[in-house]
Amino acid sequence: MAVRFELLTTDPTGARAGILHTRRGSFKTPMFMPVATHAGFRHLAMEEVKEAGASILLANTYHLMLRPGAEVFKRFGGIHPFMQWDGGVLTDSGGFQIFSLPEDRLITEKGAHFRSFYDNSRQLLSPESSIAMQQAINSEIMMVLDVCIDSRTDEAGTREAMERTHRWAVRSLEAKAARDTGQAMFGIVQGGVFPHLRDESAAFLTKLPFDGFAIGGLAVGETKVERESMTLRATASLPADKPRYLMGVGTPTDLVEAVLRGVDMFDCIIPTKMAQQGYAYTFSGLIRISRSVFRLSDEPLDAECDCYVCKRYTRGYLQHLMRGKHHLGSRFLSVHNVRHYQKLMGRIREGILSGTYAQVYRELKAAIATPKDLKDEANAREVTLKEVG
Amino acid sequence: MAVRFELLTTDPTGARAGILHTRRGSFKTPMFMPVATHAGFRHLAMEEVKEAGASILLANTYHLMLRPGAEVFKRFGGIHPFMQWDGGVLTDSGGFQIFSLPEDRLITEKGAHFRSFYDNSRQLLSPESSIAMQQAINSEIMMVLDVCIDSRTDEAGTREAMERTHRWAVRSLEAKAARDTGQAMFGIVQGGVFPHLRDESAAFLTKLPFDGFAIGGLAVGETKVERESMTLRATASLPADKPRYLMGVGTPTDLVEAVLRGVDMFDCIIPTKMAQQGYAYTFSGLIRISRSVFRLSDEPLDAECDCYVCKRYTRGYLQHLMRGKHHLGSRFLSVHNVRHYQKLMGRIREGILSGTYAQVYRELKAAIATPKDLKDEANAREVTLKEVG
Repeated sequence: MAVRFELLTTDPTGARAGILHTRRGSFKTPMFMPVATHAGFRHLAMEEVKEAGASILLANTYHLMLRPGAEVFKRFGGIHPFMQWDGGVLTDSGGFQIFSLPEDRLITEKGAHFRSFYDNSRQLLSPESSIAMQQAINSEIMMVLDVCIDSRTDEAGTREAMERTHRWAVRSLEAKAARDTGQAMFGIVQGGVFPHLRDESAAFLTKLPFDGFAIGGLAVGETKVERESMTLRATASLPADKPRYLMGVGTPTDLVEAVLRGVDMFDCIIPTKMAQQGYAYTFSGLIRISRSVFRLSDEPLDAECDCYVCKRYTRGYLQHLMRGKHHLGSRFLSVHNVRHYQKLMGRIREGILSGTYAQVYRELKAAIATPKDLKDEANAREVTLKEVG
Repeated sequence: MAVRFELLTTDPTGARAGILHTRRGSFKTPMFMPVATHAGFRHLAMEEVKEAGASILLANTYHLMLRPGAEVFKRFGGIHPFMQWDGGVLTDSGGFQIFSLPEDRLITEKGAHFRSFYDNSRQLLSPESSIAMQQAINSEIMMVLDVCIDSRTDEAGTREAMERTHRWAVRSLEAKAARDTGQAMFGIVQGGVFPHLRDESAAFLTKLPFDGFAIGGLAVGETKVERESMTLRATASLPADKPRYLMGVGTPTDLVEAVLRGVDMFDCIIPTKMAQQGYAYTFSGLIRISRSVFRLSDEPLDAECDCYVCKRYTRGYLQHLMRGKHHLGSRFLSVHNVRHYQKLMGRIREGILSGTYAQVYRELKAAIATPKDLKDEANAREVTLKEVG
């Protein structure tokens, strides 16, 4: 096993705390992985991300395949020396980008054929080429290429995508076995919003020698109730001794909900993306810092936070920077939001370890709920992947 | 005197080395002040600028007057606590922005009447209001409001602007005297490209109790020869015991030239602006890092540089960031360029102190000249003030 999951405790609610041991360190779960799309954050240096407490990042295979390309990662010995990061890296497979990016593409049993939007070159993203790219990137954890579909697809279409995902999962394992790099690989449960398909997908995949399991095909059109219900359905079918990763989710409230349903791992662009739009997360709710009401405020962004931005700068100064759309403001809010997410995971984990997650869950949900006046505008889900960074 | 200039030595070439003592520290000259237009850099945190060796910054009165406005600086006790900078600050007067920004404006003897492009509010930038704003900002060194004109203006027009500049200089001193804040104030020599007007302007201003003198109205349309000739003409008329500041200049080569002509102080957006465009200065010339030739390079940006970017990242990684227009790349190149300018000033100063500036001048000029293939494209002068940051 290229990773080993040590389950420390399962709280009465079903929430789990553990340690994910990888070749580049051991990471406490539940954990949140900030997204370094292009082998880098839009504004943050790796030192800042590390200082914020993040120890494992996600990078996007699709983007890195197109630029800078496998050749660069081979030259530099993988993503870690390239971007100067000594923590862990999980790479997605590109399946979600193939689904969501509007390039001309043809998806066949072989894989996804499309043209690079950088140089119009022909590209093939197949189970095998995705693994080859992830091997060049040399992440700790690779994901299988899956077939992502809109959650509102009918049952026949959902089954078709799920079954192809299963065939691709087998091919991915074969491609990995053909060249052992010591990297781990996770399978991805699909099945849309159909409970019996989710069960079938989990049953199929858990018979295969994966190091962990992801729950895919969520946060792509379904309701919040459907998402939470499908998350629980999937985790119920997954083995207790393997890590469970809910892909691309989400807001602080989403994390609190999913942990309750037995999820261990998360990634999302929300903390950095919302920072770029001027939103800061705090333990008393979301703040839009560019509001005029903060112009003369000498309070820190979040008095409870220990990030360097909260220790040093005022809401008034951050208001000035974001009002003027200065990149320094996005950088500072990103530092804070990345730190906030790590602190949130820490609180969640403490609750689980002390067997009081039910109470922590209620307290957090009440405290971090998006304020009513920001509910309509702070819609991080309306983020397109082209904006990611 | 709110500042004191200690002239340490004048090299045989006429180049000077000294120390400018202010209420917030003593700064070695010749010195270069990075430009924190809006009480901040576009990408850089103050810690990074300090670590790069810069100890005194320039901030733009015009921009800060419009946003965040005097009220904010009064509330926070000036720009230093607001932006968390404990070094020195010099504020320009707004004269150059009034000249160069294309807003609707009416310039009368009273001052410049215009509308804010943020909220369309009526604004008056007069000698008195500029000083009031600079007092709110609480910089160490204030500049008088001057009348800036295109260098290609005819003699009558140049004289008219110069004479108004002189009347405004007197009013600025009166405004300053009416409320002593302990801040210093510099006068600005005008006179376009007419040697006798430059003489006349210096003669008029040096009779007034200024703490230092700037050379204005250059880098606004004249030739390089005219600029260098007017610089020398102005410094020849200025007293040896006061600092001389050439405003808004320039490239590394411009600095080397101007020091030879007796200038002590500089500011310019070029190092950060060029970084945003992907250019890095080194002691073996300018580099455009986004070129494909650097894609696989594991060399540092500049092997001679001690900034954290050169110590940590490769040209290959920086190429990747700038190729993808990631803000992190602009940030990293800004760190390097700001450091490079400080190192350049250090080399210049050593040459002067050892009486060998003639040789240092020749060596530097040859080494840092813009490479032939970048001469046409790397035109930092084509920067508009709206882009500044």
